[in-house]
Amino acid sequence: MEKVNIHEKFLLFNDYWNPKIAGEINDSFVKLAKFKGEFVWHHHEHEDEMFLVIKGELLMRFRDGEICLKEGEFVIVPRGVEHKPVAKDEVHVLLLEPKTTLNTGNQVNEKTVAKLQSI
Amino acid sequence: MEKVNIHEKFLLFNDYWNPKIAGEINDSFVKLAKFKGEFVWHHHEHEDEMFLVIKGELLMRFRDGEICLKEGEFVIVPRGVEHKPVAKDEVHVLLLEPKTTLNTGNQVNEKTVAKLQSI
Repeated sequence: MEKVNIHEKFLLFNDYWNPKIAGEINDSFVKLAKFKGEFVWHHHEHEDEMFLVIKGELLMRFRDGEICLKEGEFVIVPRGVEHKPVAKDEVHVLLLEPKTTLNTGNQVNEKTVAKLQSI
Repeated sequence: MEKVNIHEKFLLFNDYWNPKIAGEINDSFVKLAKFKGEFVWHHHEHEDEMFLVIKGELLMRFRDGEICLKEGEFVIVPRGVEHKPVAKDEVHVLLLEPKTTLNTGNQVNEKTVAKLQSI
């Protein structure tokens, strides 16, 4: 059992939209990701997804509105709800979601990461 | 769906060892708690438990060692592992654990909180 220092983990990678596994808890993974730019619209059929901003600012778009998340703020996107993460500048995000969750949800495209790395 | 500002939530309560529900995700709750002093030795039979330090310093004792967690650090205590949280000074902690988790695990005593409040 080891502790995880979130800021140190973010020094280990620089790619965007490619979540890394930083912990395993029950049926879920704790993931760390850097986002920059616009992601695709998608939803997850069976999984709620938590986004906690560690650094920077994340705009989460929904079909009927948007939520701007700053450092120390999180949102839980319920299963079935379409969303599109947008980061004007680089943002560091802690994600919590079931192990079965695919980053692009119901969409499979060039941003899909089927096999996640651990850090 | 609303965002949660962690620091603002911590302004809403002052009691120790009484986790509040700040979010619901799949079969788990995201909880916020203030700790000060020594908690009881306990374990959770079927649940892994995540402790993320938001502010302050948390010492997690195990039967064979200890881990000191500072701001921005987390540990996931696997099911079955005995642990005892200790906070010399007040510490603010984000917990993630299944909805079934009792704060005192296999121990039921005066620190047990059977019914959690939401904030």
